[in-house]
Parts: sequence; structure tokens; C-alpha cells
Amino acid sequence: MRGVVMHSAGDVRVEERDDPKIIEPTDAIIRLTASCICGSDLWPYRGVEPVDHQVMGHEYVGVVEEIGPEVQSIKVGDFVVGSFWASDNTCEICRAGYQAYCVHRVLMGTIGTQSELARIPLADGTLVATPGQPDADLVPSLMAASDVLGTGWFAAVAAEAGPGKTVAVVGDGAVGLLGILAAKQLGAERIIAFSRHADRQALAREFGATDIVEERGDAGVARVKDLTGGLGASSVIEAVGTQEAMMQAIHSTRPGGHVGFVGVSHDVAIPGDELFMAGVHIHGGPAPVRQYLPELIRLIWDRTIDPGKVFDLTLPLEKAAEGYQAMHERRATKVLLTF
Amino acid sequence: MRGVVMHSAGDVRVEERDDPKIIEPTDAIIRLTASCICGSDLWPYRGVEPVDHQVMGHEYVGVVEEIGPEVQSIKVGDFVVGSFWASDNTCEICRAGYQAYCVHRVLMGTIGTQSELARIPLADGTLVATPGQPDADLVPSLMAASDVLGTGWFAAVAAEAGPGKTVAVVGDGAVGLLGILAAKQLGAERIIAFSRHADRQALAREFGATDIVEERGDAGVARVKDLTGGLGASSVIEAVGTQEAMMQAIHSTRPGGHVGFVGVSHDVAIPGDELFMAGVHIHGGPAPVRQYLPELIRLIWDRTIDPGKVFDLTLPLEKAAEGYQAMHERRATKVLLTF
Repeated sequence: MRGVVMHSAGDVRVEERDDPKIIEPTDAIIRLTASCICGSDLWPYRGVEPVDHQVMGHEYVGVVEEIGPEVQSIKVGDFVVGSFWASDNTCEICRAGYQAYCVHRVLMGTIGTQSELARIPLADGTLVATPGQPDADLVPSLMAASDVLGTGWFAAVAAEAGPGKTVAVVGDGAVGLLGILAAKQLGAERIIAFSRHADRQALAREFGATDIVEERGDAGVARVKDLTGGLGASSVIEAVGTQEAMMQAIHSTRPGGHVGFVGVSHDVAIPGDELFMAGVHIHGGPAPVRQYLPELIRLIWDRTIDPGKVFDLTLPLEKAAEGYQAMHERRATKVLLTF
Repeated sequence: MRGVVMHSAGDVRVEERDDPKIIEPTDAIIRLTASCICGSDLWPYRGVEPVDHQVMGHEYVGVVEEIGPEVQSIKVGDFVVGSFWASDNTCEICRAGYQAYCVHRVLMGTIGTQSELARIPLADGTLVATPGQPDADLVPSLMAASDVLGTGWFAAVAAEAGPGKTVAVVGDGAVGLLGILAAKQLGAERIIAFSRHADRQALAREFGATDIVEERGDAGVARVKDLTGGLGASSVIEAVGTQEAMMQAIHSTRPGGHVGFVGVSHDVAIPGDELFMAGVHIHGGPAPVRQYLPELIRLIWDRTIDPGKVFDLTLPLEKAAEGYQAMHERRATKVLLTF
């Protein structure tokens, strides 16, 4: 099969890889309908994280081609969506809603789903079948549910976005934009998006943003304070992963408010004294996407939400390198790979 | 009046100070029945925080001697308990339960309550009157409610201690010990106390600890994991304020669990990547003691709890310097000052 391998920073190739096989009796093999490139794939691409002939991709939707003998809830031919962490969905941590920390979890990035086929461990606990074969126009949205939508949703939940709340969102990438969509769905009254890009501002508004703040850092915090009677937002989503973004999120939050952070932290260190004086709640990390998949699939299937709009560039798998380059240069927010 | 002044690190004196006067119409003047020395008073005493002729003390109980013309809910002669932050208890932040961040807050440490008399700003929002004049044996417990009990209580609430939960407590000072008492009152099933001191271990058990862990750092974390099926505690209280204690708390918490931190952070920096991978909730800061005072006073008045046991040394105000020295040398956990 064909699949993406990152040889070194900036060097992405589509190569022939061995077809995956069932290894564990709980595995399934899926044929991908679509895959995509994640903002987090840019960290190794840019040399911020080490990389050496790494298979790439952790987002996936597709059709089940084969199942192991112990797989019960998924059958061959099902159209499925899964999370970027495979999980058993039965352990105590999963039952508490933290499937990204399942005691048996497997990181899909180590398997690489920017490929025609993929082995999905713990298929019963990981995959969720759609009600039928999706119309083609639903595929990008279902693809988004696999990571960026699920992650934005978790960020909004972690930030306790809800009725009557003012939510600020730091980061206008795919996750931040879908954090806005999630906050809106969860009933937030007002949603402040930090963004300097006209196209992303437009999508932010379409997803539910009521206010746009172009300033960053202290100036951005000051604007949020202005918009919230001097108090700060009740809920703030951090979807970048840098020190500036994290501190902007903490300082934009009112005492007793909630920060939900999902940006993969790079060189972030939260000063204890500032956190102490801020009096906010902080919660985040890899999103337990599996928890939200049934609901997200339903909202997409019913055409209540259209998160697939974050894909602004679609390329065949063979042109994956072009997709990485476009995201790196910020010419694209999110790239869909088709087969 | 007589009051404590810290001239410089390690130099504590009891001196003649001006009697306080009503300044704002919302002020009250109280005559203190007791005051005490806080663990946080040791930071300047040890030279970790700068200090220069600073009036000391932020905990207080006493009898109202005079009220400003706008004070309505408190009358002369009432026995009152208040928090270390004066608060209006009416602003949006107070109504959300975060009185330590009241938009009109005044830090009582700037007024200094290790003194015979004290001016209490925002008396209606800050002070809570007891049902009558307390029996002498209740005074230490009411004194504890002013800070250490209220702070331990907030830590337990922030850590979401409750029925069915396993709670671990980092720090065996007065706040940590009262965090144990609070966790027990909130219904925690199991309470793991980190402590190496026999006397504090005994009080921890009396307050509700079910397990004692003497190890610290990674070894302490490993013991908590052993005691919790490898998962970590659901709720962890951090009541020290050092890097080691904060990381011990974070790493002792299971994914999705809650860290409540109330140790005043000194040179703490939480690495973003470790926080990201831990998947815990963190919440803390100066405790909104005012929120809990009515309930805490009731529990003390009914003799349901006896938090005054944390005071293991009682001295007259004139001997305050001796009290600081005893706490600094860890000969005392918490010092009560009487008048």
C-alpha cells in the first residue's frame, strides 16, 4: 500500500509500505476513505520535534476490511470513525471519559494513517460506525471528528463553555475554529475569537464567534477584559501550545473561570505564582475524542454542524508533501487527503 | 495598641502601634480574641520574600468594637470570624464564590491582625458573626476557620474530594492536615497523607487519613500508584508551594483527576508538556474562605469538627517572636496568639 513517511524535517514522501495485518484478535483493518494532515504534524516537519523515517498520520475514516476474531461491535463493510488514541473503552479511566489515557491505549501516530490501509487496535473500543455509508459531502466532517473537532469539543468542555458563558478562543487553526463551533453547540452566549486572518475570522464568525480580537499577548488580554466588564472571560480555549498562547489564555480568564488547553505544549512553563494569583481552573491534554464520537457523528449525520469546512485544501494522498508545505506556509488551515 | 512588626527577615517584634480608626463607612473595628501565625508568614521570616518593617498577621477572630455608618449585618458586641481577604461579597466574582478575588478586595496582611485591634474593611461582606459568644474551647477552631481550615477546605473542594474518591494530600502542615479533615467531611472514601512526622501522622489519622506515605517525590508518587491500582488518586491536595510538591501532586493524580493547590507558589514552574500528558485538572490560589465560613462556623459550633487541634503552641501576643521561631524550626505546626 501507499503511505506517507517523513524522512527528516521538511522531507515528506509517499512510499510503498507493507499492507497491515491483524496482529491482535481485537484489531481491525480499515481501507481509508480519507486522511488528513494535523497541525501537530508540523512540529516534526519544522524540526521542533525529532523525526527519522516516521510513518505519519493519526486521523482516519474508512471502511472496515477485516476484523480480528474477538471484534464484536464492528463488522466488515462498516464505515467507521476513530480517535487518534486507540482505547479499550472499558477500563476505569475510559469509563471516566478519559479514553486518551486508557490503560491499554495505542497512539495511532505510531501506526500512521496517512496511508491506504491501517490497522486499528482495540477496534471495539476505538471505532464508531456511522448509521450507513455516508454521502460524499459528509466525509470531510466525519474526518474532522477523528481529531480536530473532537479536540476542539474537548477544549470547550474542559473550559466549561455553556449557556450564559463568555468563551474566548486562543488560536485560529482548525482546532481553535472547531472549539468555537463546539462552544456554540454547547450554548455559549458570547464567543470571542483571537484571529488576525480575514479568512479564518470569516469561518470563526460562521461557526459562532460574536467578537474578533486581533491583538495578542497583553494587548489581547486587555481587549478581552474590555469586552467582559473588566473581569475576563468565563471560559477560555487554548489551541496553540506556545508559552504566549498559554499565558494569554490564563490571563484572559476571570478568577474562578476555566481554561481548556489542547495545544500540544512546546517549551511551555506555567509560572506557579501567576497561576496561584489567577485563580483559574486549567484542564487539558490529548482529547478523549472517543467519548464524543457518537454525539459528533449524530450532529454531522443530521447536518446540524459542518466542521468539514475547516478543510481548505484537498489533495490526493500522492501529493501529501504539497499539503505539508501549504500548511507550513499557512496557505492552508487544514489539508484533506483523498484516495 | 500592641502589634507584631517584622523589621527584617528573622526579626519579629511586638510594638506599640496606632489604634485603628474607621476610615470607610463600611469598616468595622474589632478587638481580637486570638490571632495566629501562618505558614506563609515564614516566607518573609526566612528571607524568601522581601520584608521591611511589615505589620504582620491576616487571621483573626474577635469582638466588634465599632462599626462604620454603612455597616448593617454586623453589630457592636458580635463575635466575628473573617477571611484573610476582605471582600464585598456582592460583586459578580464574589457571587461566583471567589471572594478572594472580589473586585474590591483588601488583603488583610496589609492591615496586620497580629495585634490587639484591627480595622476590617467591607465588614458586611467580610465578617460572619457566630451564633453567640463562643465557649473558650471553641476559639482555636474558630480561629482556624479564618484561614487554615478555610484554605484546606477550598483545596479539598478544588480537588473535588467527595464520596467514593481517593484523596492524596501533599503537605502535613496545618493546611494539609485540615485538607484531610475537609476531605473526610466531604465524604472521601480513602485519604492518603504524605507525612514523615509521627505527631503530624497521628493528627492526620485523627482527622481522617486512612493511609500514610512517608516517601516523597517519585517514590511517593509510586506509593500512591501502588495504593490505587496503578491509576493514581482521583483528588490531590497540594499544600506546600514548592516545585517538588506541585509535581508530586500532579503525578499522583490519575488522568481526569483533580489537583487542588493552595501552597503559596515559590519558584514553581509547571512544565506544559508534563501537564499536557498528565490530563489532570488544576485549580487553586488564595482560598475564598468567606464562601465557606457560615458552614465551617456551624460545624465548629455543633462540635462536629475540631480543627483547633492544629494549634500545638499557644503564646501571648507579647511572645510572638518565640512563636515564629518555633514554627521556623518546625517545633510547632501552628501557633495561636492570645491576648
